[in-house]
Amino acid sequence: MKFSISTKGFTDIIDITSEVSRAVKGSKIKDGICLISSPGSTCGITTIEYESGLIEDLKRILERVAPMNKDYEHCKKWGDCNGYAHCRSALIKPFLAIPIEDEKLVLGTWQQIVFIDFDNRSREREISVKIISS
Amino acid sequence: MKFSISTKGFTDIIDITSEVSRAVKGSKIKDGICLISSPGSTCGITTIEYESGLIEDLKRILERVAPMNKDYEHCKKWGDCNGYAHCRSALIKPFLAIPIEDEKLVLGTWQQIVFIDFDNRSREREISVKIISS
Amino acid sequence: MKFSISTKGFTDIIDITSEVSRAVKGSKIKDGICLISSPGSTCGITTIEYESGLIEDLKRILERVAPMNKDYEHCKKWGDCNGYAHCRSALIKPFLAIPIEDEKLVLGTWQQIVFIDFDNRSREREISVKIISS
Repeated sequence: MKFSISTKGFTDIIDITSEVSRAVKGSKIKDGICLISSPGSTCGITTIEYESGLIEDLKRILERVAPMNKDYEHCKKWGDCNGYAHCRSALIKPFLAIPIEDEKLVLGTWQQIVFIDFDNRSREREISVKIISS
Repeated sequence: MKFSISTKGFTDIIDITSEVSRAVKGSKIKDGICLISSPGSTCGITTIEYESGLIEDLKRILERVAPMNKDYEHCKKWGDCNGYAHCRSALIKPFLAIPIEDEKLVLGTWQQIVFIDFDNRSREREISVKIISS
Repeated sequence: MKFSISTKGFTDIIDITSEVSRAVKGSKIKDGICLISSPGSTCGITTIEYESGLIEDLKRILERVAPMNKDYEHCKKWGDCNGYAHCRSALIKPFLAIPIEDEKLVLGTWQQIVFIDFDNRSREREISVKIISS
């Protein structure tokens, strides 16, 4: 199953829990694994408590790790100044596997699935939800 | 299969290899994938050589990436001063998939599975081990 | 399925997309999940656009996060001065799950699968490709 989202780029952090939950419910699979992914090298998928404070905090932490500037070989070589986005994606990875039980994702109450678009422009992104029965 | 552990919080790093190995053995599944996870937004699961030196080293590296202080919007907004824990969890992720072969986890000799509790208090944590046959 | 590669160590970043793609094709599995891993505590597996600029950029970012020096307890205790390699491996993890559709890995055009050898010496590494049908 697949769905699309529009992002603003620049480490736009988007809650995709309800879309993924719907895909899991629709699969009728009671017990197994759900692999959420997006084909791209400038995005990531992880979980976080989705509230505006933490969204800012995570952005700040990522800015410290791989700052959004032009000081990247990728920029110098290709004029493509999203080197920070590629590095953040290699660290966070655009792949996340979550268990399914009783037709539901096993997540904490304050734990949401987020897609992060690190790229330096707005994008349309396709997200894949692959479900495997146990 | 599920099991519980008690943690001390504050980036407590706990070796859970034997509990997970036991679950794999108990499943009688010869070949497949094991997904280890914990429903929470302030913990992580990864592998490391479990020895006291590296445990300290990993804590120091994480302290550099997302310091354990109150300078987080999550703290300012909610008075909940575990923002560092949420950020570390979003980076490390509380999900880990490991292959199974001959009824055993495919791991290196010096590679242990660790649960990390980043939260700023001791906790009881539930860990899920989902096994899928290939 | 397994294959071996020779690495130079010191965060040697190697494109393994074609080897993994061949394993997926050889499996004749049309739809499912592919789990790529390596049994070791000083390596990692992720995706990145494989071009020399970004390879340097990612190395620089990792050097900032966990510098390649002797200031690690692992070194002081055991004389084994690859503490940075263990810490980088715990962050990146040597496990990666990618969906399979139409007998192919679901990856972006500019997204390659890379094995990273963080260790402080050249190594022979075994990489496992476990494929699960959906």
